[in-house]
Amino acid sequence: MPELRKDPVIGRWVIISTERGRRPTSFGPTAPEPRSGFCPFCPGSEDKTPPEVYAVRANGGPPNSAGWMVRVVPNKFPALQIEGSLDRRGEGLYDRMNGVGAHEVVIEGPSHDQDLADLPVEHMEHVLWAYRDRMLDLHRDRRLRYVLIFKNHGSQAGATLEHTHTQLIATPIIPKYIQEELEGARRYYELKERCVFCDIIQQETASQATRRLVSMNDGFMAIEPFAPRFPFETWILPRRHDASFQALDRAEERRDLAILLKDVLGRLNQALDRPPYNFVLHTAPVSDHDLEYYHWHIEIMPKLTRVAGFEIGSGFFINPTPPEDAAQYLREIMAER
Amino acid sequence: MPELRKDPVIGRWVIISTERGRRPTSFGPTAPEPRSGFCPFCPGSEDKTPPEVYAVRANGGPPNSAGWMVRVVPNKFPALQIEGSLDRRGEGLYDRMNGVGAHEVVIEGPSHDQDLADLPVEHMEHVLWAYRDRMLDLHRDRRLRYVLIFKNHGSQAGATLEHTHTQLIATPIIPKYIQEELEGARRYYELKERCVFCDIIQQETASQATRRLVSMNDGFMAIEPFAPRFPFETWILPRRHDASFQALDRAEERRDLAILLKDVLGRLNQALDRPPYNFVLHTAPVSDHDLEYYHWHIEIMPKLTRVAGFEIGSGFFINPTPPEDAAQYLREIMAER
Repeated sequence: MPELRKDPVIGRWVIISTERGRRPTSFGPTAPEPRSGFCPFCPGSEDKTPPEVYAVRANGGPPNSAGWMVRVVPNKFPALQIEGSLDRRGEGLYDRMNGVGAHEVVIEGPSHDQDLADLPVEHMEHVLWAYRDRMLDLHRDRRLRYVLIFKNHGSQAGATLEHTHTQLIATPIIPKYIQEELEGARRYYELKERCVFCDIIQQETASQATRRLVSMNDGFMAIEPFAPRFPFETWILPRRHDASFQALDRAEERRDLAILLKDVLGRLNQALDRPPYNFVLHTAPVSDHDLEYYHWHIEIMPKLTRVAGFEIGSGFFINPTPPEDAAQYLREIMAER
Repeated sequence: MPELRKDPVIGRWVIISTERGRRPTSFGPTAPEPRSGFCPFCPGSEDKTPPEVYAVRANGGPPNSAGWMVRVVPNKFPALQIEGSLDRRGEGLYDRMNGVGAHEVVIEGPSHDQDLADLPVEHMEHVLWAYRDRMLDLHRDRRLRYVLIFKNHGSQAGATLEHTHTQLIATPIIPKYIQEELEGARRYYELKERCVFCDIIQQETASQATRRLVSMNDGFMAIEPFAPRFPFETWILPRRHDASFQALDRAEERRDLAILLKDVLGRLNQALDRPPYNFVLHTAPVSDHDLEYYHWHIEIMPKLTRVAGFEIGSGFFINPTPPEDAAQYLREIMAER
C-alpha cells in the first residue's frame, strides 16, 4: 500500500510508493525512455489497460472496444490505491496515512500522432466533459478531499507515454499549493470582500494596453500572470466567478474553454516550437465547491528552462522572460485554428 | 534592473530578469550546453571573472592571481544587482520592488576535474569557511534579509559551468520555503516549547534501529527525512541546536561538518553513480540568527527523477523510494575517504 507522509516542519504531504520501492540501480540517466512500437492507449489495445470508467463513443459500441473518441481508465501503475481506509496514525512526531485515492488516465483521442492542441474544438469539448464527469463521480467518495487534474506533455515534462493523455489523481488531502491558494485568496477576501482572481481579471482587462493579456473570448481569458515562475507560464481563467471546475455545466462555456485552450496551446506551439509542457487544473476542494473567495483556473507551464532542485528546495524562482514580453509575443502570433 | 514581483494570491516572490529578457527563439531543447575548452573558473583566468571578494591563498599572493584554494567572485551574470534602493511600489493589486541583492560564486577549488566530494576534508573546511565569511559580510547590508547558499552539480541539476562551485544569492525577501519552515517550526515551538528539528534528531537517533540514519559524528548527523520529496533526499543537521550557519565558528564543528558532508556525498556518488544533485543551506534570516525554534541544516537532493511542472505546480510529490530503503542502502556503503 502506498503511504502518505507529512513533513513535520512544513506540513507538506508526499506520496511514498512503498510497494514499488526503487533501488539505486533502477535510476538511469534522466534521458527519454526507449520507445517500443507498442502503445497501450491506441485503439485495438483496450484490453491492455484496466477496464474503462468512462468513454465517449459517437457511434455507440460496447465498453473496452475500439471506436471511442475519449476514454478514461485507471492508471495501471497507480500512485494511490482506491481500496482501503485511511488509517491515520503517528510515529513519534510524524504523521502518516494509507495512500488511498484514485489515479486515472484520460486518453484524449484515438490517434497516436495528434496532441491535445491538434484536436478539433468539438473533440476537446469531449475531453473537458470527461474531466468534469470523473471529478463529479469521485466527489462522491467521502474519503477524498481533492481531485487534481494535470497533464504532462513530452518526456521533458514528465510524460512516460507519448499518446496524448491527461492524468487525474484524487487525494485524501488537499495539495500544498492549492491549500496555499485557498488561504491566500481567503485572506484577500477578508480584506477586500472581493475574489482576488476576479480582481486580477478586472485589472488585466482594464490596465494600460492590457500588457499581459494573451487571448480572450466571451467566457474565458488567457494571461501571463504578473509574477510567473516560468517563461511563458500562461493561465486560463473563467471570466465569470466560479470556485469549481464542476460549475462548467453549460454548453457555450464548455465551448469557449475548448476554443481558448486550443488557441493558447496553438500559440505556445508556434512560439516555442511545440514545447514540452505541464498544465494543472486548479479548482476548489470537493467539499467547498461554491466558495466566494476562490476561482478555478488552469495554469500552463512550458518546460523551457532547467528547473533544478534549487527552485524546489527554496521556492525561489528566477524567470528570464518578463510576462509582458511573453504576452506580446503570444498575442502577435496568428494561432492556427 | 531585475525586478522582484509578488504573486498576489500565494505571496510568492519571483525574480524577473527584465534586462536579459529571453525571446522564444533563445529557448533551445533543454540539452546540456556545448562545452567550450575555456573555463573562467580555472587558475590563470582570474581576469575573466569580476574581481574576487574573498579568497584563500595558502602561500599568500595578490588578489586575482593564481595560487588560490578557494575563490569567491560576484556572478558575471547576476540575477540581482548590488547597487540601488529597493523602491517598493504597487501596480494596482500587484507588488514589486527592485531586484537588489548579491549573487556570488564560490569556486570551491582550482582543479577543473575535482568535484566537491573529491576535495580533502581540510580543503572542504576552507569552502565552508568561505560560505560563512560571505554570509557574515552580507549580513551587514541592511537592505538584505536572507543569504541563500546552494549548489547545482551537473547540468541536469541546473549547473551551466562544469568547474565545481557553489552559488550565493542574498535577497531583500526571505525565500518561500524558508519562510514556511520558520512558521512551521515556530508553531511547533509554541505547542511544545521544543525545537522541531531537535525533536527530529532525537527521534531519529532513538528510534528502532535508527531506520533513517545515514551517518553521524560528534557534531552532525545525516538522515533521510521522514517525508522526502525525492529519492535519496538527504539532510545534514548539527546535533547541537543552532538557528544559523553563522554559529559554525568552532574549528572542531567545522571539521565535523566537512567530514560528514564528504562522507554523505561520497555515499551518494557510490550508490547512484555520481548523480547530478542540488543542495540548499537552510539557515535563519539575517535578523534572527539566534532563534530558539529554528535549526539550520543542509538539504541534499539528488536529481534522479524527472521533476515536472506538475510537482512545482501542485506542490505534490510522488517519491518511489521509501527513505528507510534509501538510508539502509547508503548506510551499507563503505564511503570513500
